[in-house]
Amino acid sequence: MSCLLCDTPGGTVLWQDGFCRVVRADEPDYPGFLRVILNAHIKEMTDLSAADQAALMRVVLAVEAALREVMAPDKINLASLGNVVPHLHWHVIPRFTDDPHFPNPVWGAKQRSTPHAAPPDLDALLRAALYSQGVGRGS
Amino acid sequence: MSCLLCDTPGGTVLWQDGFCRVVRADEPDYPGFLRVILNAHIKEMTDLSAADQAALMRVVLAVEAALREVMAPDKINLASLGNVVPHLHWHVIPRFTDDPHFPNPVWGAKQRSTPHAAPPDLDALLRAALYSQGVGRGS
Repeated sequence: MSCLLCDTPGGTVLWQDGFCRVVRADEPDYPGFLRVILNAHIKEMTDLSAADQAALMRVVLAVEAALREVMAPDKINLASLGNVVPHLHWHVIPRFTDDPHFPNPVWGAKQRSTPHAAPPDLDALLRAALYSQGVGRGS
Repeated sequence: MSCLLCDTPGGTVLWQDGFCRVVRADEPDYPGFLRVILNAHIKEMTDLSAADQAALMRVVLAVEAALREVMAPDKINLASLGNVVPHLHWHVIPRFTDDPHFPNPVWGAKQRSTPHAAPPDLDALLRAALYSQGVGRGS
């Protein structure tokens, strides 16, 4: 069966290993919108072993830490939904009080039209921050 | 400073200990919409120690397992947003293809008006399932 996250990276790959990958989503309203995508086609967190659940959350939270380091958002939003693409992935979204939907979720009603500015070398900064956060080094 | 989740339980308490609580939200469109709320007023997951992050996720995923056991949803949605109430809490939402927003997030555009039916003794079933999932017993 065809699956978008089996067939494509799902964004600009910032880091990957044999278990999962971190991509920057193509979301013009949210320049720092990252996703952590499990490589295997698995639907729910509770379909993973406890060890794999913990390993995936360590990556999700390293991504949260990297985004805080690089972008200093007013809030981090974390979500694993998968209603449309039931292949386990986490949205890690830096939110700013002046971003297009704040304080609504990014899936809610839009409040304004201008994205919060991001550094021009965002990918390089995020890659360096992910490395400094120890993504993929285990714990 | 006043905080809704410091000042009130935030829903019908199904389980609690000194660290966090599991509540059923008052969401008529989503009878099985549960929340895991940290007792302490802390904003982000990465403000917690690694041990506390893991402990909170164990409860979140035990709630996911309990909801799957009791309601057999088509999908589970997990989210920690906190843009309006920046006190760490997780939404654990059983989703059904015939629920009011599917396949949109519950914060997106509504698709239909009738909630997916839930068992009349939902709270008792969820409390029993949380117990059988070992919520709060550590691991």
